[in-house]
Amino acid sequence: MPLATAPAAAADDAPWKPIAAQKQRDRASRIPSKWHIPTSALPKDPPTLADGPQNVLHLPRQFLTHAEIEITEAYTVETLVSAITERKLTSVEVADAFCHRAAIAQQLTNCLTEPLFEKALARARFLDDYLSTHGQPFGPLHGLPISVKDTFDVQGVDTSIGLAALCNKPAARNAPLVDLLLSLGCVVVAKTNIPQTLASLDSVNNIFGRTMNPINRLCTAGGSSGGEGVLVAMKGSMVGIGTDIGGSIRVPAMCNGVYGFKPSNLRLPYGGQALTGAEGTSRTSVQAVAGPIARSVRDVDFFLAHVIPLATAWGEDCMPCAWTLPPPSAQLTTALKGSGPNGELVIGILRSDGNCTLLPPITRVLNEVAVALSASSRVVVKELLTPAAWTKAQSVMSKLMGVDGATVMNQLITDFKEPLVPWMASRFRAGKAQPLERVAELQAQRSALEREMLSLWSDVDEFGRRRQVLDAIVCPVAPHPVPPIEGYNAVGMTSSFVLFDYPAGTVPVRDVVADDLELGRPLAAGNILSSWDVRCRELWDEHVTDRRVYLGTPLSVQVVTQRGRDEWLCRVMGLVDEAVKAEIAAAAAVKPRL
Amino acid sequence: MPLATAPAAAADDAPWKPIAAQKQRDRASRIPSKWHIPTSALPKDPPTLADGPQNVLHLPRQFLTHAEIEITEAYTVETLVSAITERKLTSVEVADAFCHRAAIAQQLTNCLTEPLFEKALARARFLDDYLSTHGQPFGPLHGLPISVKDTFDVQGVDTSIGLAALCNKPAARNAPLVDLLLSLGCVVVAKTNIPQTLASLDSVNNIFGRTMNPINRLCTAGGSSGGEGVLVAMKGSMVGIGTDIGGSIRVPAMCNGVYGFKPSNLRLPYGGQALTGAEGTSRTSVQAVAGPIARSVRDVDFFLAHVIPLATAWGEDCMPCAWTLPPPSAQLTTALKGSGPNGELVIGILRSDGNCTLLPPITRVLNEVAVALSASSRVVVKELLTPAAWTKAQSVMSKLMGVDGATVMNQLITDFKEPLVPWMASRFRAGKAQPLERVAELQAQRSALEREMLSLWSDVDEFGRRRQVLDAIVCPVAPHPVPPIEGYNAVGMTSSFVLFDYPAGTVPVRDVVADDLELGRPLAAGNILSSWDVRCRELWDEHVTDRRVYLGTPLSVQVVTQRGRDEWLCRVMGLVDEAVKAEIAAAAAVKPRL
Repeated sequence: MPLATAPAAAADDAPWKPIAAQKQRDRASRIPSKWHIPTSALPKDPPTLADGPQNVLHLPRQFLTHAEIEITEAYTVETLVSAITERKLTSVEVADAFCHRAAIAQQLTNCLTEPLFEKALARARFLDDYLSTHGQPFGPLHGLPISVKDTFDVQGVDTSIGLAALCNKPAARNAPLVDLLLSLGCVVVAKTNIPQTLASLDSVNNIFGRTMNPINRLCTAGGSSGGEGVLVAMKGSMVGIGTDIGGSIRVPAMCNGVYGFKPSNLRLPYGGQALTGAEGTSRTSVQAVAGPIARSVRDVDFFLAHVIPLATAWGEDCMPCAWTLPPPSAQLTTALKGSGPNGELVIGILRSDGNCTLLPPITRVLNEVAVALSASSRVVVKELLTPAAWTKAQSVMSKLMGVDGATVMNQLITDFKEPLVPWMASRFRAGKAQPLERVAELQAQRSALEREMLSLWSDVDEFGRRRQVLDAIVCPVAPHPVPPIEGYNAVGMTSSFVLFDYPAGTVPVRDVVADDLELGRPLAAGNILSSWDVRCRELWDEHVTDRRVYLGTPLSVQVVTQRGRDEWLCRVMGLVDEAVKAEIAAAAAVKPRL
Repeated sequence: MPLATAPAAAADDAPWKPIAAQKQRDRASRIPSKWHIPTSALPKDPPTLADGPQNVLHLPRQFLTHAEIEITEAYTVETLVSAITERKLTSVEVADAFCHRAAIAQQLTNCLTEPLFEKALARARFLDDYLSTHGQPFGPLHGLPISVKDTFDVQGVDTSIGLAALCNKPAARNAPLVDLLLSLGCVVVAKTNIPQTLASLDSVNNIFGRTMNPINRLCTAGGSSGGEGVLVAMKGSMVGIGTDIGGSIRVPAMCNGVYGFKPSNLRLPYGGQALTGAEGTSRTSVQAVAGPIARSVRDVDFFLAHVIPLATAWGEDCMPCAWTLPPPSAQLTTALKGSGPNGELVIGILRSDGNCTLLPPITRVLNEVAVALSASSRVVVKELLTPAAWTKAQSVMSKLMGVDGATVMNQLITDFKEPLVPWMASRFRAGKAQPLERVAELQAQRSALEREMLSLWSDVDEFGRRRQVLDAIVCPVAPHPVPPIEGYNAVGMTSSFVLFDYPAGTVPVRDVVADDLELGRPLAAGNILSSWDVRCRELWDEHVTDRRVYLGTPLSVQVVTQRGRDEWLCRVMGLVDEAVKAEIAAAAAVKPRL
């Protein structure tokens, strides 16, 4: 897969081509030559199994000063902001280090669409001046380097989402969420890459090319917030703002081994983004949400604690939501009062959604997480049966997402004679918008599924009173590990939780090791659950896929709570994360003795 | 206007007629003969100006025992529940007193559709037994007598909403909100009357006839939760559950001089109600909400403090929302920290919505409220200019409410050859559902208006940071006083706040007195703002309307806050209520000295 080139052959005179070339030249020109890395350091393309994963995750260190490595690696969101406001670091130093690292990440993975380094340094200078003049920080996230998915309007630069039709139309103003983040003191270092149409899980488009997975160049970087997943994993940004409707925050977090948080709807302003359909359509069908990708649950938690309470001032599409600062890590478990008989947290394990067979490493990592959680006396682990509503949700969600017939997107693509990227080529279908009656029917089906799901969370006693019986769910992000490029399959395990409006987050657990591959052992025979299952099984079929491609890629789980319990989700993600890290540490401590 | 008869002439063999007759006989049979009042006590029909208002508000006292009067009049929600759980009263005594009073209210105003007295007494016996067996109350609203709008499913009785097509189809189960309320210990005494189609503001239909205003029989009882407004005003129920999309809780509260609270969307379960269109349509267009009508702000507050935190267990259509119990009245003002320079509450006064000229009593009562609020050092009163978005909202809302072309409702009406009730006769138009693109366009317009409204609530400083500058709005419920029957006009001042999803409540201020009528003085000349304005002005034009009809009817204001700030709204309503009551008391204290 060539880097930063068109994903499909196209006539040389196709009108999108000169636009893409110009956009790529512009982008390259915004990376200062002092930050260029030698061609010899670049990974080989196309990636081959013989060349191995070509992991570049830590490669930037070779080109950074000790101070830059320290700034970009040694801090949490909280301690970095403290270091700046306590004047141990300046905003300019910090912004410079992150821009430098992002510039290297871009050269290694093609993760950026719009580098904003000059703008970021100017903002950092303003923040340093403000602190010096006023004697107090500009806001509670003073100097925090962040990045945003290309979909968000940033004044003065394109919101092209990798489509020629939208290039060279700089945004007149910032998206409300961008303005909110600036008002808190954040510094935006870059906008990041996405898939053509935003509806696929490989971040590739004709304008900016393909974003590569920094851990394993043979595997997908995920999407649609793929650039964010990569940039955060490469530590070119402390927090990346993505968006998610089918899994577009959680999937790239999984693919790049970082933490992704898909909030409930109405939590973060969504406006001021590129439209992929007629304006207003999402209010008739289903609404995507914005959310962070970050290095730790604590970073997500601290960040959202400052952002979410301000959301209603900036976004007409938000509801008020308080968010307390996260408690010290040691108090995390005791701070969570769950619905168990003695206040334990009741965590349910959901396995297959009934549409796909889980591939062995996914079953194994779920088991490991269940065991790790069971080790705590404050947690009760409960195996859940797959609710029929979860099985049905993928299809209803997929229909609801398509009600507009993709007419606007089709126009955008065909206006400049753009070819479809590989994943979309067999899937993109433009048609007509559905009649309102049909959309209403789908919404009624959705409501019925949501009602069915209620019974998962509470029981009714003999007198008709309800009692909470479940506090969170742990389930897969996908039925398969991080797949090879273009290999992503069913999104039901992520998209369903947008249909239900349940907040959900990705927690990386560990990397795939040789033992996980079960080389030579076929997948246990079983009923083929769906056409998605057929494709999913191919990812484990040694006649189709060399399983060694998965070695070293991250395995993650998804943590899910009820609609609107976003702060609670964040705390439970923290607990799950600590439990699995403790288990891994314990296992490592035991091993040498064997 | 005849009571409990069809509102329009119709062929004698019209198929709805025997159904209506049977339903009315059934209803009558569910009122025990011991509770019948003499025909001589009934008001005269049709009402005439010569007969005067025929106020029956306190008439039930004549037929009640001292104990029944005490039970139905002397308690708040909080003290009534306490009296039962402390065994000063039994649930049966309480239910019996309220059923008796509701039965009398029914005979005087025709406010009920389904009396549920037997069921209520059985439930009360269960609650008494439970308390005695378990030594603790069944729930925090143990024994509270409530009523619900006819739209809500109650197992075993019809949800006919006054349409022949829906009669004799008893509901298989309770609506989720009904189940929730039962699980708290409430006792449902009756279901209450509504307008044909639910889309008008006079509660009249062919099956149950017209609900009459108990304060003034010449004026409308309001709608669509008209039966609730009347029953609560007549103290036949402590809390009435209504629903509101155009003003259907706030308008009957205004017409009957009680308190109505329209929550934000996602606060109370809305499911399990009669469908007036294709299922799922509201998720594409605009969602009505359920909410309480009660005797005091404190009753609303205490009630919602127990109901809203449970909403997500019962309704798939709710978000979690905490609600603290109301503070003691004396601490209400100090408990509210507003956005004024010293933490004062900043309350904006909004006058006309730009579509209708306010009639003089409305302007006067707004001025009085502004003066009363200004008397507190903890409040800053701010005159607001009419936001253009508020003016435009009525039209967008009206279009969004009509996107389904009323095809389902039309079928329900025509299936049994029902005539349209007077208000609908000139307004009901069945057509086709709009194309999805048009609905999306309306939703986009709605989002734009919501964004415009944001600037009312906060300011941006020179560095781009937002600061809250307004804590609540006081505005009219309607541009006119409680109008004569069939006289209700524009609903923009109420429907807009459903479009914006702002919670809003009605606070009664005082009754119309002779001085308010400005007899002989024409309305000040001015631009005719709209076709609604033409109709509104007729309500003050002495050639069209004898203004004496308004004498003694309640004047109210609407209190509004930002989306999702429902608890805050309730507290501000409490503050407004106390301020005006204090002002009235002070004025009364001064008068004798003059």
